[in-house]
Amino acid sequence: MKIKIFSVGGTIDKVYFDSLSAYQVGSPTIREILDGLPIAFEYEIESLLRKDSLEMDDTDRQLVRSAVEKEPSRLILITHGTDTMVETGKTLSGIPGKCIVLTGAMEPANFKSSDAVFNIGVAVGALNSLPDGVYLAMNGRVFNPLRCRKNRERHMFEEL
Amino acid sequence: MKIKIFSVGGTIDKVYFDSLSAYQVGSPTIREILDGLPIAFEYEIESLLRKDSLEMDDTDRQLVRSAVEKEPSRLILITHGTDTMVETGKTLSGIPGKCIVLTGAMEPANFKSSDAVFNIGVAVGALNSLPDGVYLAMNGRVFNPLRCRKNRERHMFEEL
Amino acid sequence: MKIKIFSVGGTIDKVYFDSLSAYQVGSPTIREILDGLPIAFEYEIESLLRKDSLEMDDTDRQLVRSAVEKEPSRLILITHGTDTMVETGKTLSGIPGKCIVLTGAMEPANFKSSDAVFNIGVAVGALNSLPDGVYLAMNGRVFNPLRCRKNRERHMFEEL
Amino acid sequence: MKIKIFSVGGTIDKVYFDSLSAYQVGSPTIREILDGLPIAFEYEIESLLRKDSLEMDDTDRQLVRSAVEKEPSRLILITHGTDTMVETGKTLSGIPGKCIVLTGAMEPANFKSSDAVFNIGVAVGALNSLPDGVYLAMNGRVFNPLRCRKNRERHMFEEL
Repeated sequence: MKIKIFSVGGTIDKVYFDSLSAYQVGSPTIREILDGLPIAFEYEIESLLRKDSLEMDDTDRQLVRSAVEKEPSRLILITHGTDTMVETGKTLSGIPGKCIVLTGAMEPANFKSSDAVFNIGVAVGALNSLPDGVYLAMNGRVFNPLRCRKNRERHMFEEL
Repeated sequence: MKIKIFSVGGTIDKVYFDSLSAYQVGSPTIREILDGLPIAFEYEIESLLRKDSLEMDDTDRQLVRSAVEKEPSRLILITHGTDTMVETGKTLSGIPGKCIVLTGAMEPANFKSSDAVFNIGVAVGALNSLPDGVYLAMNGRVFNPLRCRKNRERHMFEEL
Repeated sequence: MKIKIFSVGGTIDKVYFDSLSAYQVGSPTIREILDGLPIAFEYEIESLLRKDSLEMDDTDRQLVRSAVEKEPSRLILITHGTDTMVETGKTLSGIPGKCIVLTGAMEPANFKSSDAVFNIGVAVGALNSLPDGVYLAMNGRVFNPLRCRKNRERHMFEEL
Repeated sequence: MKIKIFSVGGTIDKVYFDSLSAYQVGSPTIREILDGLPIAFEYEIESLLRKDSLEMDDTDRQLVRSAVEKEPSRLILITHGTDTMVETGKTLSGIPGKCIVLTGAMEPANFKSSDAVFNIGVAVGALNSLPDGVYLAMNGRVFNPLRCRKNRERHMFEEL
């Protein structure tokens, strides 16, 4: 089993350089997470973008779609900001022969209380189990991007 | 979505009391893990046993099977020691109307480098995705208990 | 042995609420840190301010001095932002019968890589050991506030 | 400022290889701890022994004393098991021109709840502050090895 991982940025990769600085999106934290775990599958990580997902536009989403289409692996994991994860999920629909799972985190991976490791686990569990299609793995749930949204007040994804 | 969680012990729950003492199996660590995460499903945790899985016998496995059979929830997550997780998985086969996922950890959940949070994530991702049956979620893979084993030298589960 | 702890804010207490929000200074993180450790001294924590130290002014520093002067305990630990820790240290000089140690962190205590726990340890080690006076405990060193500064480029305190 | 660090083993360095194995004393964990912190002093780490301190005998203690005597640095930090830390402290008394602080941990450094980082901080704070002599830094206190003991029931060091 092999998973191709694309990172596009988002809270999961945010780092905080200094008390005078703002947050910045750093390198893909999923690498350090997976490298530290006893894992029985192959993976390859490629950083496509380093953006807060609110700053992603249609060109960015087409870039992601294009990268997925060119990728030979069937299993695709995308780490992404949560605010527009649903939009990117919709953009990725209809690519044949791919099981694509998007995930991210409500708190940066380098926070002690981050949900990043758990969410990546849920995404990997979904990739092991699901037929071709596009899915979002957030808050311990696996969603269809056409039938979910981020509820910003509750800081939770929910079904529509 | 609701997940019923049974804990039976194993490395994931091991605690180390003192330099003079041996390891002991403590209370279910999955509770603290899930309580600290932003989760959009209900769960209920019940501690059935606190055993190293090498100490589990047929009576213990029947107790687990009986608890699962009586449980009304369709989704069942079992935290279990890794050494005999396959045996318990086999014992649970054939229960109708249940999706059962066993998981555990190679290192106790209270170790900084533990795989516990990730493995629980994989198990939850599988429970979101799979049809009725019994599965093992270990090392980022979802296995059929009839076709896998723990490779003790490699500290990894693998397909037969 | 009893230590009175005053928190005034700073990076050590910063929390990050959401990807759309900025950082905010939260409640004193030293409480959770000390409550989780096997400690053989008494301590009492009082939150005086919740400010980034760049926002502290003379009135704030007098408030801190006044609180220290009124406090009966000899041993005083102050958690403080790093950018003006030296200034507050100078403001506290000359209070008789007090051993005062200021500390803080370059990264928020809820970051995995935070220096908060270590720095609090250094401060406590200094409070166990030093005569009356005012000291800064940062970067594994104990400084005299009259003869040190924060080198912002190197992210380190250094002797003048 | 330079600190020479000797590690002799103890709980702080214990690692747990497998559910079938016992604990073993691994390589000095203080290296990883200090390498990850923004520290403004030099340090050099030398592993003398890898023993549970209950297994240390007079020959081992003489080896430690001899290493300290030969070491040119004035500041000496020793990471040590807690059960016989007091005995080693007594063995080191009377070495001229040295400030020696012993520390360790009640829980291995690779436990999430370990006191290792805090204790090393207290030891470093004491080394910054104290005159020549031998000290124990445990439980947030700095003790004279001639006037303290480990209270095994309370899991705490205390003054005699």
